[in-house]
Amino acid sequence: MRIVIIGAGNVAVNLAKALAKENEIAQIFSRTLANASALASAVGCKLATADLGEIIPDADLYIIAVKDDAIASIVEQVPDNGALWVHTSGSVPIDVLRIHRKRCGVLYPMQSFSKQIEVDFTEVPFFVEGCEPSVADEISALARSLSHSVYPADSDTRRRLHIAAVFSCNFANHLWALADDVLAEANLPFSVMLPLIRTTVDKLCLLSPSESQTGPAVRLDHAVISKHLAMLTGDKHRIYDTLTESIIKKHHKK
Amino acid sequence: MRIVIIGAGNVAVNLAKALAKENEIAQIFSRTLANASALASAVGCKLATADLGEIIPDADLYIIAVKDDAIASIVEQVPDNGALWVHTSGSVPIDVLRIHRKRCGVLYPMQSFSKQIEVDFTEVPFFVEGCEPSVADEISALARSLSHSVYPADSDTRRRLHIAAVFSCNFANHLWALADDVLAEANLPFSVMLPLIRTTVDKLCLLSPSESQTGPAVRLDHAVISKHLAMLTGDKHRIYDTLTESIIKKHHKK
Repeated sequence: MRIVIIGAGNVAVNLAKALAKENEIAQIFSRTLANASALASAVGCKLATADLGEIIPDADLYIIAVKDDAIASIVEQVPDNGALWVHTSGSVPIDVLRIHRKRCGVLYPMQSFSKQIEVDFTEVPFFVEGCEPSVADEISALARSLSHSVYPADSDTRRRLHIAAVFSCNFANHLWALADDVLAEANLPFSVMLPLIRTTVDKLCLLSPSESQTGPAVRLDHAVISKHLAMLTGDKHRIYDTLTESIIKKHHKK
Repeated sequence: MRIVIIGAGNVAVNLAKALAKENEIAQIFSRTLANASALASAVGCKLATADLGEIIPDADLYIIAVKDDAIASIVEQVPDNGALWVHTSGSVPIDVLRIHRKRCGVLYPMQSFSKQIEVDFTEVPFFVEGCEPSVADEISALARSLSHSVYPADSDTRRRLHIAAVFSCNFANHLWALADDVLAEANLPFSVMLPLIRTTVDKLCLLSPSESQTGPAVRLDHAVISKHLAMLTGDKHRIYDTLTESIIKKHHKK
């Protein structure tokens, strides 16, 4: 397939690199030409542009991997060429594309991407939606060329997935950043925490998160909870309090 | 070494099994005799008791691995026999032992334990403290027989570690339980979330948690944040709001 990638952020970079193995990346668009050019050269693509008017009309697939609130204006500004257009967002409904495109859909890779670490897509769950069943099949086939974990998901399901991902990844990561602050005050590196975190994740293969809950809150150890709260201020105090109360409610107030 | 284990909970079970490989577990105490007996038979130990008065006086080491608020009453009720007594808590100061014991200290394995999954102690960071340097050395030597990650830590450092562990493990796990609820509403298994979680953890080997933060909050994507909040109620709404605000404050309000 000849693919145009619209965007040069974390999702665009990782998808472009993975798709370049079995497809031709025909063009990269980014508002910042230097970013478009850098990604183009990384995936052996000859065309890079920062001008939506220069997007080539003769590719098979256009992947819009930009900030959620920029998707609508891109499909408005570029005329429909009859090709397949997809976005990669967990939160934007398919309708944003459908208004302006005959053949469109969603290819949502549920993963947290960074430019520094190249992701192995084979384990990444993809959630796909098409404007009609045959289009959904096309997008699913593309997703299956990258991953063995592909699910159909309408916009509502995809939004719930995204919320679950924000809790599981973005918010958990922020808790680790808060823990890093606490450790720094004791002159300890964050690396002492990694075995604990890995074991906690490993448990999730065998037990549900609710079943594997441990710690002072679930065992109602109010003496420890009070001591911890007395040592915390600001956001850390508020978050410790809020999460402790929520754990107690979930496990003891049914 | 001849070791008495006081407690038959998650920490006691895992420590007893690991120590039994190179030591003699001489006795198990638990308030519930069935639990003491079960652990005793699992580690080839002949004595199990639910009576503090029956604790044998001639072991080399007594490990108190019980709920934090039960430690003090145990050392009060059992007379000092001159042996080494340690507790395994991240939160209880050494002084709770020092009042009633000549040779005492702390052996804190910073890990989340469950009875279902046997922990590999070689990667578990141990934090040790002794009532005097020679005792600290004895406890460190024991810890190094189990793990290659052993640090000295006074009570204040240990408490900070425990707080960091609560954030990193207990609270992160609760976020996963909340994500599980959100997925269940969409009829999806929690397993779809595991690749995302593993990648998020893998990043922590290369980047600090703060550097690797992603998601709507850090990119100030208020459109997504509002949509997510509109779909959440109760604890999930409150926690989404609190953590989003904290991420924005940490990354954008310096």
